[in-house]
Amino acid sequence: VKSVAFSPATVANVAVGFDILGFAIQGLGEHATVERIKGGRGVEVMPVAGFPDLPTEASRNTATAGLVQLLNDKKFNFGLRVSLDKQIPIGSGLGGSAASAVAAVVAANALLPRPLKNEELFEYAMIGEEVASGSRHGDNVAPCLLGGLVYVRGSRWTPIKYPRILRCVVVLPQLTINTKSARGILSPTLPLAKVIEQTANLAGFLLGCAQQDTQLIGESLRDVLIEPQRMQLIPGFAQMQEAALRQKALGCSISGSGPAIFALTDSDVGARKVEREWRKVAAQIGLPLHGIWCSPIARRGARVLRVRR
Amino acid sequence: VKSVAFSPATVANVAVGFDILGFAIQGLGEHATVERIKGGRGVEVMPVAGFPDLPTEASRNTATAGLVQLLNDKKFNFGLRVSLDKQIPIGSGLGGSAASAVAAVVAANALLPRPLKNEELFEYAMIGEEVASGSRHGDNVAPCLLGGLVYVRGSRWTPIKYPRILRCVVVLPQLTINTKSARGILSPTLPLAKVIEQTANLAGFLLGCAQQDTQLIGESLRDVLIEPQRMQLIPGFAQMQEAALRQKALGCSISGSGPAIFALTDSDVGARKVEREWRKVAAQIGLPLHGIWCSPIARRGARVLRVRR
Repeated sequence: VKSVAFSPATVANVAVGFDILGFAIQGLGEHATVERIKGGRGVEVMPVAGFPDLPTEASRNTATAGLVQLLNDKKFNFGLRVSLDKQIPIGSGLGGSAASAVAAVVAANALLPRPLKNEELFEYAMIGEEVASGSRHGDNVAPCLLGGLVYVRGSRWTPIKYPRILRCVVVLPQLTINTKSARGILSPTLPLAKVIEQTANLAGFLLGCAQQDTQLIGESLRDVLIEPQRMQLIPGFAQMQEAALRQKALGCSISGSGPAIFALTDSDVGARKVEREWRKVAAQIGLPLHGIWCSPIARRGARVLRVRR
Repeated sequence: VKSVAFSPATVANVAVGFDILGFAIQGLGEHATVERIKGGRGVEVMPVAGFPDLPTEASRNTATAGLVQLLNDKKFNFGLRVSLDKQIPIGSGLGGSAASAVAAVVAANALLPRPLKNEELFEYAMIGEEVASGSRHGDNVAPCLLGGLVYVRGSRWTPIKYPRILRCVVVLPQLTINTKSARGILSPTLPLAKVIEQTANLAGFLLGCAQQDTQLIGESLRDVLIEPQRMQLIPGFAQMQEAALRQKALGCSISGSGPAIFALTDSDVGARKVEREWRKVAAQIGLPLHGIWCSPIARRGARVLRVRR
């Protein structure tokens, strides 16, 4: 008995919602295969091709730490063997660790006699995310599990309605940023005037989403708090952001803790223009790219692709 | 020819939206009477009973500074005499200066051959508000003019949908706080962790409003940035806030720069409970009250009551 699940890459922070907003994208994600081992016990992690450093101890591995808990809670009377097909680079800012944790939990869940809903798997996936990032932030896990644009705070998440016309372009420079060190460089205090500006941006973005007002979204999608501190970690960020805004992106900022950069646009054509401009600018400034993805915000989150009994 | 306009008192900041959110209440506001003076020129301000210190020079008076500009822009070929019936105490945190400016502009506008819409009067009312507060914040002017709950940033405002069930209780202690000095005590920097908490609260409040989710509103309506700094200016604030939350208010914080305190509840009965508890606690701790108002969020903003030609 085995099941395969897919979980999408995600863009957290979304310029105005540090630690509280995230959305799923299409075309990039993780696959997890979970196999039932008759007579076995516990969780066995298969080595992942290309990632020799991932821990093989299940409770220390991002993809499986939540599974260990699920196994205990649901009193599985069999063992599980988990193998991952990792497509999201580690340290990319695209929610790779969250996606691994989500894919494994969603796949294993499908093997239960009474599978839980995705919503009920949040806490399990969060266990894996905590192993990876050392802190408890659901802004990748929630959109990965549920799809769409999501508000998350602690264990509480809420889907956010957004204009369906929105398109996302994500570019990943060939560079790795460690989430912990990206948090470490943040100043412990922020100027009041900038905080007011950022809250005005956050409110404008959410109201623009609620009211399908892409102009208001465009006026509001600016990070004046975190991005100015982190952009130094991403060579070429300023030029890439300028390029996106020149092509009329609604906004452009760092995805999660980077180095991935995302832009939102109000049309497919606009997204393609940003993509072309990014390729041009990256070539001009000699910025090696790992990839560019152009997609709507993914309405669907993680899902089981197949179960073979 | 004369017209009379009414403009409501307003609650700005709303715990989570410092400088960007405000709503109108019912049962308290300003009346302005504007009279056309044949052959006259400019704006004449009548003394207001009980407010001997208000400037009589029109361009320095909050209620009339905007009118002077309106007169110039619209090339009135007559003068105006303005008299105010001020019901909102100065320095109460209930948007008295904004309401004066709004009422006068709305009344005068009704005397134009082609009156502007309320929306178009925003800039004129803002001129008066600037005279009063020394800075440009529309979080009282916008809800006063337009009614409801409003997001405002610079000259841009957007009405916010909110659950119609919401009730507001406002209590005004006998105490005056000057807006400028209430801004002066604010720390120029804020801790990152608190900023994240406040943005989570702001987003939760706005999403709660959009989704008619009073529970989410209740979890989110907490000011962890400004209130802790300003509550020292309001003796008894902590006890009054505790009292409101004990009676299951969704939230309770300082209205504008205080000393008025507001609470939001999810029912009429809840609002009455808060009102009773506040009266009891105020008596116990010896806090003299100027008044308590219990009302829905006022859907209608400033309006012309009558025009006599």
